[in-house]
Amino acid sequence: MSHSLAAHPDRLLPADPGTRNIARALLARVQDLPIISPHGHVDASVIEHNTPFPDPAALLVTPDHYVTRLIHASGVGLDRLRPQNAAPREIWRTFCRSWPLFEGTASGYWLRTQFESVFGLRDEPSEETADASFDAILARLAEPAFRPRELFKDFNIEVLATTDDPLDELASHRALAEDPSFHGRVLPTFRPDAYLNVAHPSWSGNVERLIAAAGDGADGYRGYIRALENRRRYFIEHGAVSADHGVRTPATLKLDAAQAASLFEKARAGTASAADRDAFEAHMMYQMARMSVEDGLVMTIHPGSYRNHHGPTFEAYGADTGHDIPVAVNYTEGIRPLLQDFGTAKDFHLVLFTLDETVFSRELAPLAGFYPSVFVGAPWWFLDAPDAMLRFRAAVTETAGFSRSSGFIDDTRAFCSIPARHDASRRVEAAFLARLVAEHRISEDRAHELIVDVVDSSPRRVFKL
Amino acid sequence: MSHSLAAHPDRLLPADPGTRNIARALLARVQDLPIISPHGHVDASVIEHNTPFPDPAALLVTPDHYVTRLIHASGVGLDRLRPQNAAPREIWRTFCRSWPLFEGTASGYWLRTQFESVFGLRDEPSEETADASFDAILARLAEPAFRPRELFKDFNIEVLATTDDPLDELASHRALAEDPSFHGRVLPTFRPDAYLNVAHPSWSGNVERLIAAAGDGADGYRGYIRALENRRRYFIEHGAVSADHGVRTPATLKLDAAQAASLFEKARAGTASAADRDAFEAHMMYQMARMSVEDGLVMTIHPGSYRNHHGPTFEAYGADTGHDIPVAVNYTEGIRPLLQDFGTAKDFHLVLFTLDETVFSRELAPLAGFYPSVFVGAPWWFLDAPDAMLRFRAAVTETAGFSRSSGFIDDTRAFCSIPARHDASRRVEAAFLARLVAEHRISEDRAHELIVDVVDSSPRRVFKL
Amino acid sequence: MSHSLAAHPDRLLPADPGTRNIARALLARVQDLPIISPHGHVDASVIEHNTPFPDPAALLVTPDHYVTRLIHASGVGLDRLRPQNAAPREIWRTFCRSWPLFEGTASGYWLRTQFESVFGLRDEPSEETADASFDAILARLAEPAFRPRELFKDFNIEVLATTDDPLDELASHRALAEDPSFHGRVLPTFRPDAYLNVAHPSWSGNVERLIAAAGDGADGYRGYIRALENRRRYFIEHGAVSADHGVRTPATLKLDAAQAASLFEKARAGTASAADRDAFEAHMMYQMARMSVEDGLVMTIHPGSYRNHHGPTFEAYGADTGHDIPVAVNYTEGIRPLLQDFGTAKDFHLVLFTLDETVFSRELAPLAGFYPSVFVGAPWWFLDAPDAMLRFRAAVTETAGFSRSSGFIDDTRAFCSIPARHDASRRVEAAFLARLVAEHRISEDRAHELIVDVVDSSPRRVFKL
Repeated sequence: MSHSLAAHPDRLLPADPGTRNIARALLARVQDLPIISPHGHVDASVIEHNTPFPDPAALLVTPDHYVTRLIHASGVGLDRLRPQNAAPREIWRTFCRSWPLFEGTASGYWLRTQFESVFGLRDEPSEETADASFDAILARLAEPAFRPRELFKDFNIEVLATTDDPLDELASHRALAEDPSFHGRVLPTFRPDAYLNVAHPSWSGNVERLIAAAGDGADGYRGYIRALENRRRYFIEHGAVSADHGVRTPATLKLDAAQAASLFEKARAGTASAADRDAFEAHMMYQMARMSVEDGLVMTIHPGSYRNHHGPTFEAYGADTGHDIPVAVNYTEGIRPLLQDFGTAKDFHLVLFTLDETVFSRELAPLAGFYPSVFVGAPWWFLDAPDAMLRFRAAVTETAGFSRSSGFIDDTRAFCSIPARHDASRRVEAAFLARLVAEHRISEDRAHELIVDVVDSSPRRVFKL
Repeated sequence: MSHSLAAHPDRLLPADPGTRNIARALLARVQDLPIISPHGHVDASVIEHNTPFPDPAALLVTPDHYVTRLIHASGVGLDRLRPQNAAPREIWRTFCRSWPLFEGTASGYWLRTQFESVFGLRDEPSEETADASFDAILARLAEPAFRPRELFKDFNIEVLATTDDPLDELASHRALAEDPSFHGRVLPTFRPDAYLNVAHPSWSGNVERLIAAAGDGADGYRGYIRALENRRRYFIEHGAVSADHGVRTPATLKLDAAQAASLFEKARAGTASAADRDAFEAHMMYQMARMSVEDGLVMTIHPGSYRNHHGPTFEAYGADTGHDIPVAVNYTEGIRPLLQDFGTAKDFHLVLFTLDETVFSRELAPLAGFYPSVFVGAPWWFLDAPDAMLRFRAAVTETAGFSRSSGFIDDTRAFCSIPARHDASRRVEAAFLARLVAEHRISEDRAHELIVDVVDSSPRRVFKL
Repeated sequence: MSHSLAAHPDRLLPADPGTRNIARALLARVQDLPIISPHGHVDASVIEHNTPFPDPAALLVTPDHYVTRLIHASGVGLDRLRPQNAAPREIWRTFCRSWPLFEGTASGYWLRTQFESVFGLRDEPSEETADASFDAILARLAEPAFRPRELFKDFNIEVLATTDDPLDELASHRALAEDPSFHGRVLPTFRPDAYLNVAHPSWSGNVERLIAAAGDGADGYRGYIRALENRRRYFIEHGAVSADHGVRTPATLKLDAAQAASLFEKARAGTASAADRDAFEAHMMYQMARMSVEDGLVMTIHPGSYRNHHGPTFEAYGADTGHDIPVAVNYTEGIRPLLQDFGTAKDFHLVLFTLDETVFSRELAPLAGFYPSVFVGAPWWFLDAPDAMLRFRAAVTETAGFSRSSGFIDDTRAFCSIPARHDASRRVEAAFLARLVAEHRISEDRAHELIVDVVDSSPRRVFKL
């Protein structure tokens, strides 16, 4: 049976006809607003050089671990989904054959929307249509209109933040900022995990390079802290508005400089215990907050993922290959030492994300409902999907209202999925607000104000854009 | 844009027209029933003396940490919301300016309902209308009809329980009980936290006073236990039906008298370790249950709040200032020692509340679905809101039915919000039952019986009223 | 007031008329498909011998701890619900008097459906109708058409798996397989808990018997492992497709043979510490997976129940008497050692169940969305109810799609409830899919494919039927 891709104009809106009418009007209010993307993983050099996307597999399948993991779960080895091992057309065929796996998933929604609205396909992917769709997309990618800069404009992206290594020279960001022919904003984000997480395999070397490059001649813990501060300043000078932290737990800890220096030296010497490492990393989260208070970078925390859960896959294929699995987190106790000192610090913005939904109503809404510095991060990763987004709003709003959340974050390395992701988010916001209106919890005119606030003003305000 | 406050008669009812019709009929069944409020924080002396409410800020803003916390989160210092630091009219203006923060929150709903139905306001609070609404409410508060006793009657309150210190003489409760002109019931509740929680700053002094006042001449642990028993009896003689316990965790533990006495003496001497303190408090929860089995007071437990999360705010402004943040709880293992001995004790009623929604389906419904003594407490604090209440019913009912929950608890110190809170609860019960009827899970006539049971019979039965 | 039992044809379908129409068509697609029941607790000998069911109480009340626990919670002692202590008619009267307790519960739904569709009753149970319904059911049970084999056929059961002791000779299963007059499949399931859980009161004796019976002459750990392997093979020869494991936590651990043997001997000698016992059991889960990889039995894990929570009830009435209470589980870290080695093993199927809903979106969907071996178990026990099933689908689908879940499992010892349980599940699947169609998330024709896949193909595929 052939399945049409045609996207319904009411997709993701509530089924009840009265509520749907309200949602349609709300959606219309924000559908044409520019895209603000304050956190993601697109490569800035691709935009700088306006590099054509090579082929459908490289664009839509191989770099997207949301997609490859489900195909892997169905029994296809990851080698069959890697450009090193398989031809693009073969990978594409495998993907098309696997298409039914994505029914009902967030990835399925984004892909379907891209296929139709970006590439003009009419039929759903399937074994029969695989070659035709491969050729059709390939042809499109060769057109000038499908170069990254043209798509950037066509997608109506106003701001796009990337995620970058602290020692990155940010040449692409600088080039784009200085290019009078480019009108978007592509901003770097300071992401120092590999310099803070002692257990990271390259931590020791990273720290050496960091101190050498930016320690102002100081060595040891003092040089390390100095270098982090310097590199943050460098990022700010190149447009950065935030620093991002991917940590196992949201633990924070305040140590005095002597204690911290002692743990730092043990870690460098390879003699730190697990408890030492945990303490040092929790302390560095505290330090990152201290620096944010001083330099103004918005601090975002993405905790609670057990990275590289399957050792053999990590050894064979590396990180970000689909087996990062969430664990429960404890924000209330973990983040407290940081908030003791910085929870009410002027202009400090701390955005707390989670993969553990249970903290939305229990911890994040109460925290953001008191601390001026705290904002609840939008549903992230596995939770960036319509039903999960509705659960997020229902869990957070009754305690914290609409003003204390971050606005949508697409968090993607899949450039062409950005409009589809923002479209889904806007539809879900319209669906949620429409229900509140239909149940006479808020007035319809207030809902029209709120949807603009949530879609457009929130990310600008929270990320200081 | 000016926003009308006019409350829609169908507010909080489901949007689907068929389901809404069923809900309307269910709501009509209970809308005029008297208010039973078996747990709350209103001050009995205000009712005894029929003290006029001073001004809109003192009535609606400054004592309500649900309200001040969200304004604080928006960047307004708590000093600007305290009568010690700001004039009532200034506080009121700040509140009115902050009104949009409350859209979609439970507090927003309660306030909106009060403004319209208690004070007859027509426009939503805003900077422009702040002075006019201040003056309008102030004028109302001067009218005899707005005195506490008149409102008590007007609100159709039948029973109102307060929360009281074990050494309170309960003079107001006695005066009200003996006043032939007052027809309501105002009942004290025994709340011994500050006498059981060794970490409480005034524990040691409290214990001295308690033993001196009611220990029957015995000292040490024996006098302490005796005094608690005596004061409970005193409360019962003054109408108390329940004892309430606000604890960090629901841990319970049975110690023999010698062990307990030894920990008690260590605690008094200031030599108890953290483990000693935890053990002693868990044991005292066990003792409180033992006393409830003997004297008949319903035992209610409110665990899982990390009190005074932000140290600097606590130091500057004290407790109950908006930064109590929930943590995960483990009822299944924590409450087990208590239930081993008292879970099937005759006429023992134990009502378990939670701020951690995850225990509703996982722990509380299974516990209440087996133990005759256990009832699931209504959604509390951050969870006392329409969507959270619907999640509660959906999580609990399929395992424990309707007979094992406590009925609504308003838990409020905001006297004028009581009708709005009970109204919201009744609407949500109607909404939930209407869905079950619309989905043919229960019959419409049974739903009409159940809503009366849930709104009226449950609190009477569970709280022995 | 008398309440009719008449089941509405749209029961459990969504109230919104448009969505309900879609759901009706989806339900029609699967309503007549045969029942596949790959996990349950029916006694095979009852089917072998075609034993008539004795009376309504013995059939519907006394063996069903879902039913007795709620009556117990209402204050009726378990002795009044036991055939040892009360006459069947008395028990039935108690049950009928208690009927309103079951409104809104899953058990209430199943019972109501049985009463009407299996026994042809028209009125709801009540004190007044108790004797009449007892007599009516009793009369039915005497009819040849109400013998187990006739009901098996009438219920349209194709496969029914039982749960069996590893040393069971499986005589009934063999007799049924060899009986040309019986056309169903009744399959044993290998359930070795009492041989793996060192804390089980009869572990030591069980292990002796196991080694003696099937250890091939070897003793100690080697004989133990050999015996388990041998008995699994015996089960496979008698039709078993899966091995089931009821454990307190999903912890797994790989020990080398010497370490494992040492713990085994300590456990037999009664000198194992709690940590030793935990390590041994976690290791045995790893061994069970290793055996499943080798012999092909599907491995199912049912963790997270605190068994026999109320000691006095356990002492008086034994296990499975209604007070097994769930606790939180940690699958991500617990199951990792097992998945390291077997998560991508060819043809290994591992089905993970939970009573802790929080792991659906946080852990199980991400695990099943990567590991080819992992399937998310259907909602189980307290969660096997309409709203909980909808929460399950909403939590799992957006990450793992429809292909990674197990299909419905009735897990019941109440034979006559099997059609009602499968009927409820099919209705809920139709309701969920209908919402996705109505919200234009999937196409209607795809939904028609998916519901057949979910109801029929999934259990066949996952359980290798």
